[in-house]
Amino acid sequence: MINRQIKTPIMHRAVESNGFVFFGGITADDKSKDIAGQTTEVLDKLENYLSEAGTDKSKVVMATVYVSDLSNKSGLNQVWTSWFDENELPARATLGVADLGEGILLELVATAVI
Amino acid sequence: MINRQIKTPIMHRAVESNGFVFFGGITADDKSKDIAGQTTEVLDKLENYLSEAGTDKSKVVMATVYVSDLSNKSGLNQVWTSWFDENELPARATLGVADLGEGILLELVATAVI
Amino acid sequence: MINRQIKTPIMHRAVESNGFVFFGGITADDKSKDIAGQTTEVLDKLENYLSEAGTDKSKVVMATVYVSDLSNKSGLNQVWTSWFDENELPARATLGVADLGEGILLELVATAVI
Repeated sequence: MINRQIKTPIMHRAVESNGFVFFGGITADDKSKDIAGQTTEVLDKLENYLSEAGTDKSKVVMATVYVSDLSNKSGLNQVWTSWFDENELPARATLGVADLGEGILLELVATAVI
Repeated sequence: MINRQIKTPIMHRAVESNGFVFFGGITADDKSKDIAGQTTEVLDKLENYLSEAGTDKSKVVMATVYVSDLSNKSGLNQVWTSWFDENELPARATLGVADLGEGILLELVATAVI
Repeated sequence: MINRQIKTPIMHRAVESNGFVFFGGITADDKSKDIAGQTTEVLDKLENYLSEAGTDKSKVVMATVYVSDLSNKSGLNQVWTSWFDENELPARATLGVADLGEGILLELVATAVI
């Protein structure tokens, strides 16, 4: 059984099967925000998608964070570590990539269990 | 139990366990093709690998598409959305990366259930 | 049930659930090493993390290797193929990305079963 939720023109934002939920890449809508603001918006969106999928942030197991500028990592980390309970931090990789789209400072890919 | 299929010198193209199949990065052989051509070739390969693994494109749950030029995203999307049934679109992230190899416009990483 | 292990300030290095273990991005500490040296150190670390998670390198199902210079791929591959049993090579994608941090030549993200 595959449950797909939150359809966009090119994907489903949350696809669940075999006890896992896979989320498509999440970016901020307000690209004028700095890294703290964009990270907050991205995590707010993740919280909504987790909720729609029937799970929550305590069940995120893996996160990949793509950033357009690796020097933004400390700003990202501040928001990240205050958002997650410290005992529930997921595994994570953070990569500096060439292009996420005009003004986009980070894109988050996450996997949770349900 | 782990089932590995389609061995190359450095990997198995499809590795299955616990109800999931993980596919190694897929690129087009004909690097003279444009984004539509390369996307079509990549999805043709994915279809073969899915079939060898005993599953099909209706069961792809997550896709990560790395592109060498993010402005190719609309060409990619046109082929993508005509290849997948619109109700079976997987979660997806699309990232512009620095280097996929000479002439390679996209590389696809996919996970399916079986 | 989620088992998280090896806590750092921003993540757990190994997070296990539903028969899978997800590892955070692994890089070498000694950034003066060449690609062979950094790959060896990264795989040594992975071996330790696999062991702490109660599994081993024969059960790695998927690996994503981010490299700062794609021309290092052959040096990476030499260490890679001698470290894994050839019949147990995981699926893999190798991407050239813009920035992994000063002196870091590769970052490995891996998923294993347990």
